[in-house]
Amino acid sequence: MKNKAITSRDVDFAKWYTDVVKAAHLASYTNVKGCIAIEPNGYAIWEKMQAILDKKFKELGHVNVQMPLLIPENLMKKESELVEGFAPEVAWVTMGGSKELEERLCIRPTSETMFSDYYATHVKSYKDLPLLYNQWCNVLRWEKETRPFLRSREFLWQEGHTIHATKEEAEEETRRMMDVYKWFHHEILAIPSITGLKTDKEKFSGAEYTLTNEALMYNGVSLQAGTSHYFGQKFSSAYGIKFTNKENEEEYAYQTSWGTTTRMIGGLIMVHSDDKGLVLPPKIAPKQVVIIPIGNDERVLELSEKINKELSENNIISYIDKTDKTPGFKFAEAEVNGIPLRIEIGLRNLENNEITFTRRDTSEKINQNININILEYVKNLLETIQKDMYERALKRRNELTFEARNLEEVKKIINTQPGFIKADWCGSLECELKMKEINGIKSRCILEHEKPLTGKCVVCGENAKHLVVWGIQY
Amino acid sequence: MKNKAITSRDVDFAKWYTDVVKAAHLASYTNVKGCIAIEPNGYAIWEKMQAILDKKFKELGHVNVQMPLLIPENLMKKESELVEGFAPEVAWVTMGGSKELEERLCIRPTSETMFSDYYATHVKSYKDLPLLYNQWCNVLRWEKETRPFLRSREFLWQEGHTIHATKEEAEEETRRMMDVYKWFHHEILAIPSITGLKTDKEKFSGAEYTLTNEALMYNGVSLQAGTSHYFGQKFSSAYGIKFTNKENEEEYAYQTSWGTTTRMIGGLIMVHSDDKGLVLPPKIAPKQVVIIPIGNDERVLELSEKINKELSENNIISYIDKTDKTPGFKFAEAEVNGIPLRIEIGLRNLENNEITFTRRDTSEKINQNININILEYVKNLLETIQKDMYERALKRRNELTFEARNLEEVKKIINTQPGFIKADWCGSLECELKMKEINGIKSRCILEHEKPLTGKCVVCGENAKHLVVWGIQY
Repeated sequence: MKNKAITSRDVDFAKWYTDVVKAAHLASYTNVKGCIAIEPNGYAIWEKMQAILDKKFKELGHVNVQMPLLIPENLMKKESELVEGFAPEVAWVTMGGSKELEERLCIRPTSETMFSDYYATHVKSYKDLPLLYNQWCNVLRWEKETRPFLRSREFLWQEGHTIHATKEEAEEETRRMMDVYKWFHHEILAIPSITGLKTDKEKFSGAEYTLTNEALMYNGVSLQAGTSHYFGQKFSSAYGIKFTNKENEEEYAYQTSWGTTTRMIGGLIMVHSDDKGLVLPPKIAPKQVVIIPIGNDERVLELSEKINKELSENNIISYIDKTDKTPGFKFAEAEVNGIPLRIEIGLRNLENNEITFTRRDTSEKINQNININILEYVKNLLETIQKDMYERALKRRNELTFEARNLEEVKKIINTQPGFIKADWCGSLECELKMKEINGIKSRCILEHEKPLTGKCVVCGENAKHLVVWGIQY
Repeated sequence: MKNKAITSRDVDFAKWYTDVVKAAHLASYTNVKGCIAIEPNGYAIWEKMQAILDKKFKELGHVNVQMPLLIPENLMKKESELVEGFAPEVAWVTMGGSKELEERLCIRPTSETMFSDYYATHVKSYKDLPLLYNQWCNVLRWEKETRPFLRSREFLWQEGHTIHATKEEAEEETRRMMDVYKWFHHEILAIPSITGLKTDKEKFSGAEYTLTNEALMYNGVSLQAGTSHYFGQKFSSAYGIKFTNKENEEEYAYQTSWGTTTRMIGGLIMVHSDDKGLVLPPKIAPKQVVIIPIGNDERVLELSEKINKELSENNIISYIDKTDKTPGFKFAEAEVNGIPLRIEIGLRNLENNEITFTRRDTSEKINQNININILEYVKNLLETIQKDMYERALKRRNELTFEARNLEEVKKIINTQPGFIKADWCGSLECELKMKEINGIKSRCILEHEKPLTGKCVVCGENAKHLVVWGIQY
């Protein structure tokens, strides 16, 4: 049943999105312009994202640290491209207590500056390297147009900052971490993202190159969700991070950074959710199974407790809804909040020796004999839901992935149904800017391992260097 | 053996403290005045503190959220006592990008404002209550004198903010969370803190009353480490948080807040550490056991792996130091970093059928037959270390807890050896201020369940209302 508080996804996608955010209690607007309050249901998703990614980072040898929130202006200015890229969108602290500050401080929009300044005093020899540091924190960018999770002035993220003795090792790290983000999207979020290289125009300010993870939303709009940057010696030369290498010579170190943000919550919503509210893949759902007893019969409650205990003891996050709401209200609440699997147990069920399972993703109701191995059944069903959600998202992505051989085709596609548009590109900024004139289309990424379609740039007709995925973005 | 990079604790306590912070790689000064970089060893302690406290908070029904970092000035001003208390020490954002802001925003020094503003729009009926919210985040206070962990402009903390339908429930929550902090200090940090009520002068700006957890450092200086505030209806009336109660009448809600910070890392150091570096109680140590193989003999390495595997599989956090440093260097490193237990395994040990265990807290070396149940032995030894560390800290606290019956005695104590000074108090601000004239002594807390010593105020000689613990503080 459609949720009355939620606009239909096909009628007004933008409104649908904010309705879902609100109805599922993920976030709330605040009286701080452009900043949201992340509510318990939203923060629980972020906590699970953090736990899974943090474990993976640590398995790969990373450790967590915490650098200062505030960056003195002179430090920020040391790397010219970084400051040019971020200066228009930082918030400045100019007063401490009642005193005007001698030097203003910006609230970090990203922390290359503070990590580089730290490395400059702590890295001396190749024996100190690599340092594989990461931090979980808040950052701030003075955005004009904001949307919950997708773009807000303050957001939460992790930023990995690593420093290495060789170019090869730093480049390997850059790719390894992009592989982690891809794995996280495909395996955990059930989002069939694509990865590739950003064009020079779209790369991170101060990077030699940027790898990106791009997800396609249900409406065909792209979402950049995770980037990994190779800096080479750009920051180390700007900040004076020299070390003595194995040959006993002084050399500037090689750096990377990589990050993912609370924006992924927005991506999760816009890939999987529907007109009834949130739909979450079981692997990222903070609560995977809700058991709803119908009525107060002792046998019903006992069986509910028994099933809940068995699931909970076997790494399935389940709970019994014991509130005094009506069953219908409980169903609707579990639905809007995106609990992947609902188990109903009533007296009638017991009389028929049946339990009813309801999948959130398909709304399918399945009656099963009470004597099956419920733990195994639930495990398998959650896996099936995860797999099916991925397959559906992949099907949608494939349906919305187009090929264009000339500008007319690009225009036709974007005016009919936006999506990923594959088209050849000569590599010039000029042609990239001409694409942008068409509904704001931007290059999403260069597909490094795919050959051009026609061999000719879709804009100018000159020889193509790359096959690029284009699209409009959040 | 004394660590050469560390000043002796009895020679210069302040220098000893910063030496330990540096030598154990807990934190580093930065080029941002008053702000530190928390390094991997320090952050790992914070992560463990977070994990243990967060689990406890959740068991008690709390959920995590995230409110904005920035607070508009007009919102902050709604509760007059809060703004008076914090205005002198907040940082102000006055520019976003290149534009001057119409209204300046302060970086949160604490978040009563944002939680209250949120509750004002989300709480409508007693059915919505209680809301038991907590957030893990950074806050900023424009301190003049700073010290790593103990007092820095930016620090990390958790702040619980709860809202209730009745006074009784909110007061219960205030006490329950102080009990959690006390449990955490006694059971996990092995710090025998005392708890009690703050005087009106020392309570939180805007609170009806504040409960506090006070720890005594090795040098007799007090550290406030965890407070829990009962707000009554002060914030709810200032921010208009009304709800319909069970009697269908509108009523202002009842609020609490409670917090602990990275300052606890400073407390851990100053209670337990020594001239060799950090000493950590096993329950909070990010790494509990280090295994150091001596030499490269196959049997030595095999046994090291076997023991490490057995410990790791049984919830003991152990690792093998496989670096190519010398054994002596590895011992020193494990020592300065405060690994509670060191296991050395060499060829000579194997020939004697022995393994050597070395306790970090006492430096005691214990040889054990190789055929004992090592898992059980290590488990018990870690428990013994935890218990012994608590007992030593308790002994020190008791030795440095004094009773004073008049001002002469107060002066004599504080000039000989600072500590917790128990003395009667009439309850007047005047007498509290007179105590402050003596070396800056402040009331630490009112002992709610203990009777006055003499019945007469230690300052004015009038009738005493409370037995108070006084001391000098960080």
